[in-house]
Amino acid sequence: MDFISEIAIWGGRITFIDIIDFIGTFAFAISGIRLASAKQFDWFGAYVVGAATAIGGGTIRDIMLDVPLFWMHDPFYLICTGLALLWVIILRKHLIKMHNTFFFFDAVGLALFTVVGIQKTIDCGLPLWVGIIMGSMTGAAGGVIRDVLINEVPLIFRKEIYAMACIIGGLIFGLCKIINVDPMLTHLACGAGVFITRVVAVKYHICLPTLRPEDDEN
Amino acid sequence: MDFISEIAIWGGRITFIDIIDFIGTFAFAISGIRLASAKQFDWFGAYVVGAATAIGGGTIRDIMLDVPLFWMHDPFYLICTGLALLWVIILRKHLIKMHNTFFFFDAVGLALFTVVGIQKTIDCGLPLWVGIIMGSMTGAAGGVIRDVLINEVPLIFRKEIYAMACIIGGLIFGLCKIINVDPMLTHLACGAGVFITRVVAVKYHICLPTLRPEDDEN
Amino acid sequence: MDFISEIAIWGGRITFIDIIDFIGTFAFAISGIRLASAKQFDWFGAYVVGAATAIGGGTIRDIMLDVPLFWMHDPFYLICTGLALLWVIILRKHLIKMHNTFFFFDAVGLALFTVVGIQKTIDCGLPLWVGIIMGSMTGAAGGVIRDVLINEVPLIFRKEIYAMACIIGGLIFGLCKIINVDPMLTHLACGAGVFITRVVAVKYHICLPTLRPEDDEN
Repeated sequence: MDFISEIAIWGGRITFIDIIDFIGTFAFAISGIRLASAKQFDWFGAYVVGAATAIGGGTIRDIMLDVPLFWMHDPFYLICTGLALLWVIILRKHLIKMHNTFFFFDAVGLALFTVVGIQKTIDCGLPLWVGIIMGSMTGAAGGVIRDVLINEVPLIFRKEIYAMACIIGGLIFGLCKIINVDPMLTHLACGAGVFITRVVAVKYHICLPTLRPEDDEN
Repeated sequence: MDFISEIAIWGGRITFIDIIDFIGTFAFAISGIRLASAKQFDWFGAYVVGAATAIGGGTIRDIMLDVPLFWMHDPFYLICTGLALLWVIILRKHLIKMHNTFFFFDAVGLALFTVVGIQKTIDCGLPLWVGIIMGSMTGAAGGVIRDVLINEVPLIFRKEIYAMACIIGGLIFGLCKIINVDPMLTHLACGAGVFITRVVAVKYHICLPTLRPEDDEN
Repeated sequence: MDFISEIAIWGGRITFIDIIDFIGTFAFAISGIRLASAKQFDWFGAYVVGAATAIGGGTIRDIMLDVPLFWMHDPFYLICTGLALLWVIILRKHLIKMHNTFFFFDAVGLALFTVVGIQKTIDCGLPLWVGIIMGSMTGAAGGVIRDVLINEVPLIFRKEIYAMACIIGGLIFGLCKIINVDPMLTHLACGAGVFITRVVAVKYHICLPTLRPEDDEN
């Protein structure tokens, strides 16, 4: 990965990416666990929904790309989900106050996961448009699996711009490739595009148009 | 594919199969988009449900067969889904009148997808009974994914004969193989079997028996 | 498989494992078909839900491990599901009386599927903790797919200990590996751990703690 800017802590073994990866995985897992708790799931059910939210998108990506699943070679992601479960159990009453922090973390994770998904797809020799789809899937499919598991209509199909932020980031990625930008700058621009689109969409309540039912008169 | 009868238009690059493939993909996508619109999905959500309906069955097939996903090497299917979305947005009020046309297109797509699924499975060296399952999955699993995404009980598990039409087509395919029929005729007979079964089942409201609940007295 | 104790019937071709495999597959399929019948599914829908319950977990495992799907090379599992459907159709009114038998069969199947899932994962060269996840998935994911298909919140996320029994069995498996127990004994200890945990949990209504909703005052 070109996007790795090593920060020399712990003997250089933890990179800036690792930190963002932790933040994103944690935030995604928290979102799954909180929705599971609203449905009175037990700890195991909450853990599974949290894990599915955090690693589901990347799992579908890796299955579709026919590469080894990323979480099978590093227990980090499942440990991170376990920490998220502990967090929710212990700090339950204070979660609502952390809303903005979680939103920020979630947007950071969305940005990283999109970049990773696009780059991994391109590294498999597939065209950029497949990369944009896979990047969006890495970022957004976990939330769809989460909503299927708790038996709700997937949120991202009806609410503020979410997966569209990934697609906008993907288009920026493609633009950078065309004008031959440095890989690391490409990754940063793509991630920033996802993050800013997401934050702006939520702040100004920007939604995509809704399809009206066929019997609607207007 | 033996089933390709090239029609010499556009320099021979568009085949009869391509046209049927477009019709089927378009009809499947329309069915997903219409059901999404009944649930007030936004354009993105509707597109995703449309795409899942159109390419979901073939995607599951290719994952199960461990071959590259068919839509990753040809943007045709996702463009076709985009056209279906445009169609629904623009012609929303007139869709209900096109009901019979869509039903016809859907049955044509079901027939083609079944044939393609069976042939692709056999080409992977798997036995015919796996081919029949994979053919039915290619035709019918997209609709199941659609219904899971819009949070409804899958229609094909309760309504008129749908996946059973694929299975009947598959049995015809097997019969043709046994009596050593020419591959192209085999494909045509299989597709016709699917199409006719589906049309007859809907016209005469032929359903499979329903399993009665266990506390039912009769 | 080390766990095979051949019983010399039918020329030695049917093993003890085959019998347990049949019992487990049958019980899993029955559970899917019964829940489908409560939703007025037709015979086809009930068969699909039964098959998804019986072979869904192993299918996800094999896709994640990137190995050929186990049921594609042996029609046994789909025939077994067909027999389960026949059983439910014919003996509908008597099923409720067989409740304890089905529970027993289901627990036996859970134990076997867990052992098979762990061993298959280790045979792929993956670490034991991945094996425990894959073993639990082999045993429990079919039930999750079943509940998604009938549009219910997955039972195993809220009720008695089910997948946790697989994890406990998996930990026993790991312990045996560490202290270098004979493979066959390892398999037996793991399976017994799953079975006993499951039976004890149901008998004494042992549940995991539930996550309380965030607005809960206590």
